[in-house]
Amino acid sequence: MDYSSLVPARLHPEYSTLNQVKITSSSIEDIYKGLNHIGALGDTPKGGFSRPAYSSHETEAMVHIESLANVTNLKTRWDTVGNLIIETDGAYTEWIETGSHIDTVMGGGNFDGTAGIVAGLAVLQAATQFDTPLRKGMRLRVWRGEESAAFGVVSIGSRAAFGSLSTGVLKNTHQGRTLSKAMRSQGANPETVEKGVSTISNEERNSVAAHIELHIEQGSVLESEGADIGIVTGIRGSIRSWVKLRGAFDHSGATPMGRPHRCDVNLAMAYMQIELDRLARASIAEGQDIVQTIGVINSNSDLNCAMPEVASSAVSKVSGSGYFSHEVRSVSASQAKAFSEQAFIAIKEIAKEYGVEVKIETFSNSPGVESLDSELQELAKSCSQSLNLSYKKLPSGAWHDAAVLSGVKRGDGSNIPVGMLFIPCRNGISHSADEYSSSEQIAAGATVLANMMVKLAS
Amino acid sequence: MDYSSLVPARLHPEYSTLNQVKITSSSIEDIYKGLNHIGALGDTPKGGFSRPAYSSHETEAMVHIESLANVTNLKTRWDTVGNLIIETDGAYTEWIETGSHIDTVMGGGNFDGTAGIVAGLAVLQAATQFDTPLRKGMRLRVWRGEESAAFGVVSIGSRAAFGSLSTGVLKNTHQGRTLSKAMRSQGANPETVEKGVSTISNEERNSVAAHIELHIEQGSVLESEGADIGIVTGIRGSIRSWVKLRGAFDHSGATPMGRPHRCDVNLAMAYMQIELDRLARASIAEGQDIVQTIGVINSNSDLNCAMPEVASSAVSKVSGSGYFSHEVRSVSASQAKAFSEQAFIAIKEIAKEYGVEVKIETFSNSPGVESLDSELQELAKSCSQSLNLSYKKLPSGAWHDAAVLSGVKRGDGSNIPVGMLFIPCRNGISHSADEYSSSEQIAAGATVLANMMVKLAS
Repeated sequence: MDYSSLVPARLHPEYSTLNQVKITSSSIEDIYKGLNHIGALGDTPKGGFSRPAYSSHETEAMVHIESLANVTNLKTRWDTVGNLIIETDGAYTEWIETGSHIDTVMGGGNFDGTAGIVAGLAVLQAATQFDTPLRKGMRLRVWRGEESAAFGVVSIGSRAAFGSLSTGVLKNTHQGRTLSKAMRSQGANPETVEKGVSTISNEERNSVAAHIELHIEQGSVLESEGADIGIVTGIRGSIRSWVKLRGAFDHSGATPMGRPHRCDVNLAMAYMQIELDRLARASIAEGQDIVQTIGVINSNSDLNCAMPEVASSAVSKVSGSGYFSHEVRSVSASQAKAFSEQAFIAIKEIAKEYGVEVKIETFSNSPGVESLDSELQELAKSCSQSLNLSYKKLPSGAWHDAAVLSGVKRGDGSNIPVGMLFIPCRNGISHSADEYSSSEQIAAGATVLANMMVKLAS
Repeated sequence: MDYSSLVPARLHPEYSTLNQVKITSSSIEDIYKGLNHIGALGDTPKGGFSRPAYSSHETEAMVHIESLANVTNLKTRWDTVGNLIIETDGAYTEWIETGSHIDTVMGGGNFDGTAGIVAGLAVLQAATQFDTPLRKGMRLRVWRGEESAAFGVVSIGSRAAFGSLSTGVLKNTHQGRTLSKAMRSQGANPETVEKGVSTISNEERNSVAAHIELHIEQGSVLESEGADIGIVTGIRGSIRSWVKLRGAFDHSGATPMGRPHRCDVNLAMAYMQIELDRLARASIAEGQDIVQTIGVINSNSDLNCAMPEVASSAVSKVSGSGYFSHEVRSVSASQAKAFSEQAFIAIKEIAKEYGVEVKIETFSNSPGVESLDSELQELAKSCSQSLNLSYKKLPSGAWHDAAVLSGVKRGDGSNIPVGMLFIPCRNGISHSADEYSSSEQIAAGATVLANMMVKLAS
């Protein structure tokens, strides 16, 4: 593909001064053109996408973004864990960053993550066209593998870049391949993770003046309230566990119902779910930010290989083996932790009552962010207002790489100021082929992002 | 294998008159010798067995029984659906039958069904040695595929023999092969089932004076009460259904808990199970014979092929698809039916409440037997007493081919008198490699069976 053919004569004809930058929907569409077929499951984007973490499709999409950056005089580089960094040309002591991811869940859409990358590139492309130079550099970070769908952990790329990814996850498998192997297959080096080394130098870290991620909402609040822009107040983190149960397979006709005759895993799982549901509702009623989900029961292919006895379940047997996933999300790490502990006690008590052995394996713990940077929230508000775009403040139910950045401390002990912008997505749907935001919606978000970044960089 | 080497000089040295026949444990062991490796999963019988319905292993075991029968001057023949019939030589107008099955569930033991075949053969072998001829013939029926584990339906062979197997089940699959194909692979003809033809002529049917099945208990009542013999009063039948659910996959962080936001299949399944459990307990408290089991949740390989969306479940998604099995057993067909109807209404109401679509597919309905022949129960009692064997009357929780026989009408409108004997099995375990009854326990049961059959045939 000849990327130079994609460079328009004048990228963003509608901005004139640094006081008012506008990203057009056509510049969004130009960037999307090449992405619409990478990892696509059908002939059109409507069939959904599969660009799992550290897959060749993810790399291909990143290389496409890199190529578009290169032809518009942006500088590009890759770190040792496979993240792509795109920067405006020049020596700066401070940088204004944006970033997101370009991987998808299997059968997902082309907007979760990707919209933020496309918007970010459009902003940096616009920045190369300014007549007045900016005082600070602009940077776009294209993170690897934010989705947990492949290797069971979120934000692999951004956490690895800051040296905070636990080494254990390198052994996690997706379609029979370890993360370690998948990383190597895409030219990344798992040893960086093993050593817990940050790919971002202290100097670079200290020079980040702000980081703003644009993302689709993955909910229907903005759409239902007719808001153009979501100003994210906090980000829910999660604690994720597998609850593995072992009872006793028994003849369903000859074994009387109830204890002590049966050690019935399926029945125990049902009573556990009901009690967990009750506990979550009680916490929410108390004003806590708790969202609990039992997403998987006996249907995870990797776990079924590890627990083959689950396949011995039969219509005519009392169930003797089973498992389910337990996820709790909260913007408050302490609330998530306290709720998990309460939930695990309930699970263990019910297991005992039903004569079932239980093992709870927490495989992921990503603390949430109670409050994103308030000055960036204010800036998002003023930029939206001056652009005549309607906005709404809301917390993010979903996890984002911005949450990783929020936890990063600079040399002086201060946190990197982190902000997030949401744009509406159709019916609130994500992680599905039906996921959709229009070019106009993305362009509106990108315009707010551009104006925020320009204000911060001027 | 040279079967002639297995014929002892005197099969059963310990009986002398028709008033007292004794089957020895060594004659049981002689028959078992050749069966202990057919379909065995390990080097010893302790590793369990897999002799699924209409498999070559099932056939091999039947051929072994046939060969042992042939070398002891018993007559053998096969019907067109693959059942083996073994008879004492001679022209009789009336017959006393015994019968059971020799197939196993995957990973099951060598006693469920097989003990009845071994006992029956030992009885018929003994009958060939009587000096005084019997007035009625003796017959052993080795039924095909009693276990539902392979094709999802019970008593394929016995129901097909009486022309009462529904043609739809020919399409049921086991390991990717239809029942129809599996039947052909073992020399049986599925057309007999398609035509609904009985392989047993009216004359033969009318000549059956009694049918008695010996089986392991598959429960622990006899063992715990120290009884040698169980006299079965009734047999539980079952109604079996798949409950298939469709909700909506949604982002677990961005979708608030509860309705109307979530159409959560896993949560709906949990509330269904709890309500079904409550209903069953209420019926039992009212004195009804009801046993309910949810044996499978999302773990049936054939159903997973038909419902691939279940595999889309993920830790970070609200569950949008799932299924479970529902089985209700009762000696009373009307109680099972009434309970099923009540259960299905509850399932549908909860589905509605949780915004989940539900389809209930009943794939098997085998009416139970409230009361087996009372005269045969009395005969079992008197034979046990005269043999100084302790006995206990009890219903059968498990299904047996005897239940099919109980429903068969003779030309004069009368039912074939059917009886069942149980022998203890260790810890009540069956459908497991740990399934076990000793040769002595089987011999004791076979001795009662022999004396009952001889009394009836004299």
